[in-house]
Order: sequence, then structure tokens, then C-alpha cells
Amino acid sequence: MDQADVVVVGAGLAGLVAARDLLAAGRSVRVLEARDRVGGRLLNHDLGAGAIVELGGQWVGPTQLQALELVRELGLATHPTHADGQHLFERGGRVTRYRGAIPRISPAVLADVAQAQARLDRMARRVPLDAPWRAPAARAWDGQTAETWISRACLTAGAKDLFRLGVEAVWAADAADVSLLHLLFYTHSAGGFDALIGTEGGAQQDRIVGGSQELALRLAARLGEGVVRCSAPVRRIAGDVVEADGISVRCDAVIVTIPPTLAGRIDYDPPLPGLRDQLTQRMAQGSVVKCMAAYDEPFWREDGLSGQATSITGPVKVVFDNTPFGDGRPGVLLGFLEGNQARELGDWDAGARRTAVLDGFARLFGERARNPIGYVEKVWADEPWTRGCYGCFMGPGAWTSVGRALRAPVGRIHWAGAETATVWSGYMDGAIQSGRRAAAEVIENCP
Amino acid sequence: MDQADVVVVGAGLAGLVAARDLLAAGRSVRVLEARDRVGGRLLNHDLGAGAIVELGGQWVGPTQLQALELVRELGLATHPTHADGQHLFERGGRVTRYRGAIPRISPAVLADVAQAQARLDRMARRVPLDAPWRAPAARAWDGQTAETWISRACLTAGAKDLFRLGVEAVWAADAADVSLLHLLFYTHSAGGFDALIGTEGGAQQDRIVGGSQELALRLAARLGEGVVRCSAPVRRIAGDVVEADGISVRCDAVIVTIPPTLAGRIDYDPPLPGLRDQLTQRMAQGSVVKCMAAYDEPFWREDGLSGQATSITGPVKVVFDNTPFGDGRPGVLLGFLEGNQARELGDWDAGARRTAVLDGFARLFGERARNPIGYVEKVWADEPWTRGCYGCFMGPGAWTSVGRALRAPVGRIHWAGAETATVWSGYMDGAIQSGRRAAAEVIENCP
Repeated sequence: MDQADVVVVGAGLAGLVAARDLLAAGRSVRVLEARDRVGGRLLNHDLGAGAIVELGGQWVGPTQLQALELVRELGLATHPTHADGQHLFERGGRVTRYRGAIPRISPAVLADVAQAQARLDRMARRVPLDAPWRAPAARAWDGQTAETWISRACLTAGAKDLFRLGVEAVWAADAADVSLLHLLFYTHSAGGFDALIGTEGGAQQDRIVGGSQELALRLAARLGEGVVRCSAPVRRIAGDVVEADGISVRCDAVIVTIPPTLAGRIDYDPPLPGLRDQLTQRMAQGSVVKCMAAYDEPFWREDGLSGQATSITGPVKVVFDNTPFGDGRPGVLLGFLEGNQARELGDWDAGARRTAVLDGFARLFGERARNPIGYVEKVWADEPWTRGCYGCFMGPGAWTSVGRALRAPVGRIHWAGAETATVWSGYMDGAIQSGRRAAAEVIENCP
Repeated sequence: MDQADVVVVGAGLAGLVAARDLLAAGRSVRVLEARDRVGGRLLNHDLGAGAIVELGGQWVGPTQLQALELVRELGLATHPTHADGQHLFERGGRVTRYRGAIPRISPAVLADVAQAQARLDRMARRVPLDAPWRAPAARAWDGQTAETWISRACLTAGAKDLFRLGVEAVWAADAADVSLLHLLFYTHSAGGFDALIGTEGGAQQDRIVGGSQELALRLAARLGEGVVRCSAPVRRIAGDVVEADGISVRCDAVIVTIPPTLAGRIDYDPPLPGLRDQLTQRMAQGSVVKCMAAYDEPFWREDGLSGQATSITGPVKVVFDNTPFGDGRPGVLLGFLEGNQARELGDWDAGARRTAVLDGFARLFGERARNPIGYVEKVWADEPWTRGCYGCFMGPGAWTSVGRALRAPVGRIHWAGAETATVWSGYMDGAIQSGRRAAAEVIENCP
């Protein structure tokens, strides 16, 4: 039986930041991690010769101040997401080129998107970030899906398609899955819908040199010997003892940082209150398959293309040039299967899925895209210690019924993780905020 | 290490029926049950002197043929739910009396309820019971909440309130929580909305003499020595070994009968496919607190009242005379806190909750209701081995994205439980169907 002031469950960003703050405050800490590595939903992959891409979260945006501060503090650098050149937009079998943020679609659709987005942003600002259920129209907004709102707020089929795609891209869930109130909360939490979906000025603006997992690797290295214990999935929290495979730790406080749906799978003694348990039942993970194809060089750039594409057709609906920082070799196309596309194709065998993804790349960037020199993918729903991505979302009715259990400590147990953040909920930035907040709670409560 | 042809996880109706069928087909069976008793969501309670009431499921209806057959087969009898006298309807501070199925509300509201219900039943018949996602309008219906449909389909506030209350009474969830497609599937599965909400002719028509848990107790007794192992929560299914507290069993096949949300908490090796895991994330439990107050006698009968009441006011919205079979002593009033009322009051301390419930009874039946000789309640969301009731529901988007994983076997693992039924899904009848279906699957696949 090991002993520590605080046990942190999960060595993702939230857990590692919490451990750092707790150690700085003089507390002894054990971080118990189920996987054989740190980083959680951050995962670097070496394409060969040190060309690093990420299979998980990768971007930071200019208003993600906590993430940027951590990048700086850990001696890391950022570089801009490649955006030079023309972007592509595919709909109904046609591929068109455009520059800037807005595809060349009909003015009626553009006007429709603009009016709906203005309404969305206005409603979002009325959602209190620490208590979405207290929004003035909380019950009405939580009583409907994002799909219901989109189908009413947009007048054109084109605008509806774009909004649906926006939801898929941000939540890796379909507009049918997500509560309107959650859409609004999350939008407010990010500072607006443009901030969520945008590259320049938005959440996809910058990448981290060496890959985002470096944040976790460097944080873990600084915690010192014996603080982080990998391959130690926590099975049970019984009184003041946290039981993981191969190790049990007696402690004064616990910070659980894993996604709520997985937090519900731990065996608690005494059992969690019904409300908290039901929260874990109502926050399902989105679903994403992140797919990358590597080529000798980013050949699309020679064609004047940025590598960014938006496709209503799918199954790959969002594409980026994800060429690693350096000399541009290899060139990498990144495609996301999101929401129901991920659930559908995630069930296929890997070969068929690869063919479907490369078909999509070829429609957009030409036949050369069909023959990469390397290919890598991650089906996040298959990962036992994540079970989806990008994060857990609230379906209708959840915020207004069980939402208040999201951060409320239960005895000595505190809750962190990107889903529990008020600012940039669901992002690295939110994960950092949540870890700091939970550590502060513990420091205050266990003097 | 024990050994058996088949391990059944959970000794509720589904599991016990499956075990019975498997034994009859010559298979050896172990039923592993987490609780120290059989019955799952069926639970008798002795009010004293053998006056039995149920803290869980209790009713059977005339079209629940599998349940009625099991009642007969086990030598049990039914008696009608007490319905003689006038029912009460409370709305906006007023209590009115009525007879038959329909409260004395304005003809406009009645007409509105009738037209909406006719539409609902018509839509419901178009949902294939074995594949709701194949309904002609599946995506549109699954893209909205029951609340969205109610607010559009009903023209009067009165009809909206009644439909919302109907959803709460049937699913123990709010109309905001439930997918319209799920509402329609469930309605079709029961044979119509009247069958779901009705007493005479409907799902609440009859009770079982001695209490519904007798079904489970008698089934278990007939399985023979050593088949059912209680206090053995299954933690892990690794290859052909099922590991529970205190016992591991090697087997050819497993039937998991526990609610999907709890099935997701078992540790599977190899891990479940992403789609199946995500199904368990998308089927949350409803929430109900079942409350019963006992009195020397059913005094309301003397006032010409049936004991049945419907209250829009709440928090107790549905009340029944639940006097046990026998000489009418004690008289019992049964009140349900459902959906958000259960989530809200389930978080209160028991004394405050009791006061709120008895306040409601007193408004309906007079001051005498405030002073029972006995009081008993069950907060089902607090139960670690159920975590809600009456069952797991589908929020929007779930049926059309992950629904196809509901019954699909994964290797040697088969799925049963009331939620997996096609007919009377969510009811005892459905649990029995599911147990028989899963047993037949195993018998066919493991000759």
C-alpha cells in the first residue's frame, strides 16, 4: 500500500497539470494512468526520420491562453497550420476552389449562414459558463437537438448542410446527437462559433513543433521520479484507497480527470450519489477516426492548393495539410471521419476504410493522392481508455437535469478533465484550466 | 475456476429465463448476480404481516403474453389494479374528479390529445421493431426530442402537459431527454400509446399476488442447486473466462442481461468494438423514486375515490392505490417521482422527500394522507446495480447511429435484458422475450 496526499486518476493534460500544481503546493502526489504512456487524447506518431504528426488533439488557437502559456513554459514553439493557397469545397459531385474563410457558394446561402450564426452567437452569450442550466431559456434550448435548431434557423439547404458539418467537425457527433443548449454553451466557452471552426484566428490556427504530446511528456518529466505510474488502470475508489492494477494508494483526496463516461466505470465505495452516476450515463463520447496519408512532398501546394478542404459529400468531410514542421517532407494530408461517418466506417475493416478515405482525397486533390507512401489512422472509439473523441457531449435534457453534478466534489473526490472546463471546454486549454481548478479545490480543502 | 457451458450475467427475469431455457436444452449454466438476491428491478417489500408491495416493477397487462404465461407456469395469480371509484386530476392548484380513462378537461384539450395521439400511433406503426433505424423517416424522427414533437403536434398547453406527463410516466425521463424515434419504437413495441399508459386494458392492468419478485424467486428455485450465484458482481470477461467477485467461470458462451449502461462498465478483453461500447454510452437510465405510504385502511375508497391520480403540479405526478391483495389492510398509496422530479428530489435527504410526497398525497386525498403508519421508498438511481429505472432510453441520434449494436453478439457474448426486446421493450414481458431469444441464439451457435 502506497501513500500520498493526493491521487490523480489519468495522466492527460488535466491530470499532469493538477499534479504539477499540487507538488508546487507541497503535496505528495501519485498519478495513476491506465495506458503505458502519458498524454491521454494527445498522441504523437513518428512517420519516420523524426517527422512527427499527432493521432489525437493537435491545434492551439490564439485565445487559448492557458495552452499557449504552457507551451511557452515548457520551452515549446508553435507554427501556423498550413493555409497558403486555395481551399476546396465539395458538394453534389462538384469541387470548387476558394480563398479565405468562406467557400464560393451562392450569396443566398452565405447570407443565410451569416444570419443564423449571428443568432447562434447571440444566444450563446446568454449561457452562463459555470451553470448552463441557468440560461434564461435553458429548458427550451435543452429540450431540442442542434439539428432541430439548424433546420428551423436556416432557410436554405446549403446553410443547413454547412451548420451540420460544423457540428460534426467540432463535436465529432451529429447535429441530431447534441443538445442545442450544449451547442450554445460550448460556443460561448470558446468565445464564438468562428473561434470553434476557424483556422486563422480560431481553434485550428497553430500547431506545436514536435507534436502536442510533447506537452504531456515534458510535464511528466518535470514531475520527478515515481509520481506518474503508467499501466495502472484505476478499478476502484474505496474510502481513502485508490486501487489500480498493481498498485493501491491511500490518500486524502482524489482528482478524477478521465472522461465522464469512463469515470462512471470505476467502482466507487461508497457508491456515487445517483445524480453523479447519471451524469456519467448522459455524457457520451463523440466518435472520430483521424486518418493521415503521407506523400514524398505536399504535391497539392504546386497546384496552388492549401490542402484544406470541406466536403459535404464525405465520408471525409474535413481535410487539412498536416505536413510536419520542417522541410516539407513528407507531405501529409489529414482527413477526419466524424460522428456517424466514424461510427459507420469505424466498423469496417481497415483496408476498406483506407480506400474510402483515399478516394475522397483523390476526388479533391487528384489521383496522386491515391498512392501515399505511408498511411496511419486512429479509431478513437476502439481505444479502451478513451472510447471516442474529441470529448463527451451533452444530449438534450442532460445539462438541465444532471449538469450540476459535473464539477461538484463527492466527498474526497474531485472532478477534472477537458469536459469540466468553463473556458474552451473540450480543448487542451480547457483541460489545463480544469486541472488547475481541481488542484486548487484540493489545496483549499486539504490544508 | 468453475466451468459451465454458458454464463449468464444478471439474475433478473431475462437472465433466469435464459438459464431455464439453456438448462432445458441440456446446457450447464452459471448465473452470476451482483446483488445478494435475485430479481433485478423486481423487488418485494413486506409492509408487515405478509402484506407485500413492490419497490420495483409490478404490473402486467393483457397483451403481455410472455409475462402472463410465466405467471401461470409458476403457479402465480394476478389481481386487478384497484380502479373502482373516481380518479383525480390536479392542475394549476385545482383538483377535479373523473371516471374512466379521461380527466374532465376542456373539450378542446381532449380533441387535441386525440388528434396528436392518433398521429403518434400512426407514426409508431411505421417503425420496424427489430430495426427502428430503418423506419422511413428514421433520421428526421431521431433528429428531434419527444419534447420538440409534442410542442409542434399539440396545439393546446393542456395537451402538451398531458403528453409530457405521459412520457415521464412511461420512461421515467423527460420529453426533452428522449428521441422521438425511441418514443415511436417503444409505442409500437407495446402495441400503442394507450397500451403504455393505460390501467384497464393497458400495462398497468394487473398485479401479481404475492408480489412480482415471486416470478424471479420461483424461477431461481426451479433452476436447482448451485446454478445462481449471488453477491458475485461480474468485473471482467476475458476470452472464455467470466470473472466475478469470488468466482471465475470458464465457458463457451456468455449472456449479458444487465442494463446496457452497466454492461459498459464490465472490463472486456479483448475490448468491445467501438460501436458496441458507444451504444452503452448512449443508453442512459431513466430515474424514478417509488414511494409508498401505508394507512390503516384505504380511506380514500370511502370518499368514492379510486386512489388513482394524475397531477400536472407534481412533484408526485402519478398516484395509484397499491393496497396489497387481501383484506385491504393496510391501505397503500403509491406515488412516483419520475424523470427530473426524481433527479431533483432524489438528491434531497429522505425526510424532506417524504414530506414533499405526503404533501402531494394530502392535496389529493385530504389531510389524513399526511400521517401514514408506514412509509417506504426506493431511489433507483442510487442502486449501484441498476443506477436508474425503469430502463435505459435512447436520446436523439442513438438509434440511427449505434442502435444496430443493441443485440448483435460480439464473439461469444450475447446480449439480453428488457432493453433488447422488440415486443414490450422495457417491461417484464420484454425481459422474458429477450432471455428466450438470447438462449436460443446460444443453443443454435454452440451445439
